[in-house]
Amino acid sequence: MTQGFTTEEFKARLKRAQGRMDDAYLDAILLTTEPDIRYFTGYLTRFWESPCRPWFLVLPRAGDPIAVIPSIGAALMARTWISDIRTWRAPDLDDDGIGLLAETLRALGPRIGTPSGLQSHLRMPLDDFGRLNAALPKPIGADAGILRSLRLVKSDAEIEKIKTACHITTRAFERVPEIARVGQPLAAVFRDFQRLCLEEGADWVPYLAGAAAQGGYGDVISPADERPLTAGDILMLDTGLVHDGYFCDFDRNFAVGIPSPDIAAGHSRLIDATYAAFEAARPGNTAADLFHVMDKIVTGGAGGSEAGRYGHGLGMNLTEWPSLIPTDHTPLVPGMVLTLEPGIELAPGRALVHEENIVIRENGAEWLSQPYAAEMRRI
Amino acid sequence: MTQGFTTEEFKARLKRAQGRMDDAYLDAILLTTEPDIRYFTGYLTRFWESPCRPWFLVLPRAGDPIAVIPSIGAALMARTWISDIRTWRAPDLDDDGIGLLAETLRALGPRIGTPSGLQSHLRMPLDDFGRLNAALPKPIGADAGILRSLRLVKSDAEIEKIKTACHITTRAFERVPEIARVGQPLAAVFRDFQRLCLEEGADWVPYLAGAAAQGGYGDVISPADERPLTAGDILMLDTGLVHDGYFCDFDRNFAVGIPSPDIAAGHSRLIDATYAAFEAARPGNTAADLFHVMDKIVTGGAGGSEAGRYGHGLGMNLTEWPSLIPTDHTPLVPGMVLTLEPGIELAPGRALVHEENIVIRENGAEWLSQPYAAEMRRI
Repeated sequence: MTQGFTTEEFKARLKRAQGRMDDAYLDAILLTTEPDIRYFTGYLTRFWESPCRPWFLVLPRAGDPIAVIPSIGAALMARTWISDIRTWRAPDLDDDGIGLLAETLRALGPRIGTPSGLQSHLRMPLDDFGRLNAALPKPIGADAGILRSLRLVKSDAEIEKIKTACHITTRAFERVPEIARVGQPLAAVFRDFQRLCLEEGADWVPYLAGAAAQGGYGDVISPADERPLTAGDILMLDTGLVHDGYFCDFDRNFAVGIPSPDIAAGHSRLIDATYAAFEAARPGNTAADLFHVMDKIVTGGAGGSEAGRYGHGLGMNLTEWPSLIPTDHTPLVPGMVLTLEPGIELAPGRALVHEENIVIRENGAEWLSQPYAAEMRRI
Repeated sequence: MTQGFTTEEFKARLKRAQGRMDDAYLDAILLTTEPDIRYFTGYLTRFWESPCRPWFLVLPRAGDPIAVIPSIGAALMARTWISDIRTWRAPDLDDDGIGLLAETLRALGPRIGTPSGLQSHLRMPLDDFGRLNAALPKPIGADAGILRSLRLVKSDAEIEKIKTACHITTRAFERVPEIARVGQPLAAVFRDFQRLCLEEGADWVPYLAGAAAQGGYGDVISPADERPLTAGDILMLDTGLVHDGYFCDFDRNFAVGIPSPDIAAGHSRLIDATYAAFEAARPGNTAADLFHVMDKIVTGGAGGSEAGRYGHGLGMNLTEWPSLIPTDHTPLVPGMVLTLEPGIELAPGRALVHEENIVIRENGAEWLSQPYAAEMRRI
């Protein structure tokens, strides 16, 4: 099976959720975001790009999930393993699904939770959330971190999808010399690189960032401009493409011409840091441990940079829990997929960032991206 | 100036917002989503794909906006016209910007609003919103619909960007016969069509949906599968690509071989409905009026279908206010950009949907997409 997951996998996820709901005395969990709903249903569509309709999935403490969704999604939801699908014709300016949702939740009990911690959000109008709470015996509370804890550890089937996304990106990076040369505007390189990702098999390319500047770059989140590539530039491309609903997220640096000695040394140090973190990435260590291993090599232990972290979780979102920062003591466990993303500032406005993707296994880490060489490729 | 907007345009948007804040007795508006923040700042980055960091923009009743953002975004924000940029090093597991934001808001007064109506959401953790409210003299309330009413009417500069996105898509649709032929899997057509969009100048392609099935399709939001195109199929591609931060959103139907008479007649009726709505799309009429004009032609006035609407607003989001439905009495005014999107069900599971993009002008509508012919193109 190459697309989606088996029904058994969804049932196992539900069972894990329900076990923790019991522990947390929750009667139901309300889900409103794309990845959370897809995690339990397999409901995969780019239609979420439209912010106009809310979508709801309810996990009861016992029994199968209930989808409370706009009727336009009923046919696609019916192709998943979900059988209890309740719809309304959205958008409805008088009641955009709230009455139907409240009725569904009331039947399950008073203790309802929804993801509410860091990195989560509620994808429904705030006024409607107020109306919903008013129609329930008790206001909706937290989900006790259940969604975060479940999605933190990936199944083998999920890891395979992330690995496939990584392999597609590895092949696209191999072809960068086809599209990047002196005189080519960065905006054209961005367009062409997305084309390469599609040619190599990406379903789509939700994320591409990068930069090209003399001797390192000051910013890794700006859109591309029309400035042409120039000898002495360092070109960085950071991509999050999607295969069957799962992201990769890693970058590559390329030297336009011959890199200066400080750039070459800086890049080599980032590669060293990545390998050191790879060695430390095993059960028994924590997210913070990986930060410190990299920071010792990158800054001599100065505590990182304003970018804030040296990597993060990865899966149905481009970035997920945990963060590789000094205060995140999440224990590493098998099945966790991480990015290792050390950055170094050579001078004000001249930085380098390097990134790889790994999965934690019983005895250590495994590369998902094909690790880059210490000497950056020249174009 | 081809990228972004002039500072004067941002100041004019702010001035309009502040005039309405006066009327609504609001001391400040808190914004948390990508388009709302970009509307006042020009802050354009694909980094929003990462759900892990919250971003805040505060509009005071007087004076310039204040950005309260993760430090990783400071360099890019400093390139916009915004000068008051307050940062924290995110993610911070103890206080992810809430203390800084509360301090900023408290200095502006007790009456704070945020978009909370239909089609909006709050992009920050619910727990943190609770903490923020607890740190303010009064809980945050509604923004009195100010964001919706401002973004509903586009400036000429915004319309130009949407028009450019439409022209890119028109050119890509012209080239569909290059990539779609009998035997080609739909998933490959989807990949290749995104490539064509990039080749024709798209910055990126956030949205592509579609279908290929015998004599019409049952579903317009599913991802592509590996089923090969077959004679007798109707292939529909619906695309939302982005140019400089603005979307187009329209589709095209193609007949694989010779379409059956009912398909040909159905498609011709959709085109008729689109032209009729185009004629009615002028100041003095409403969103509901356009629905009824189309529904009379499509269903004889039966009231539409379960898809829910015959079009919607368009701009920085793929779909925006208003909806072309019987209950949406939003008056059409010059500068409003709309999709006209009638659908017809020929038999259960055999539907056709057609879509064009228009802008409302003083004396009527203007096409942004190049309108399609009554006879669908054959491949």
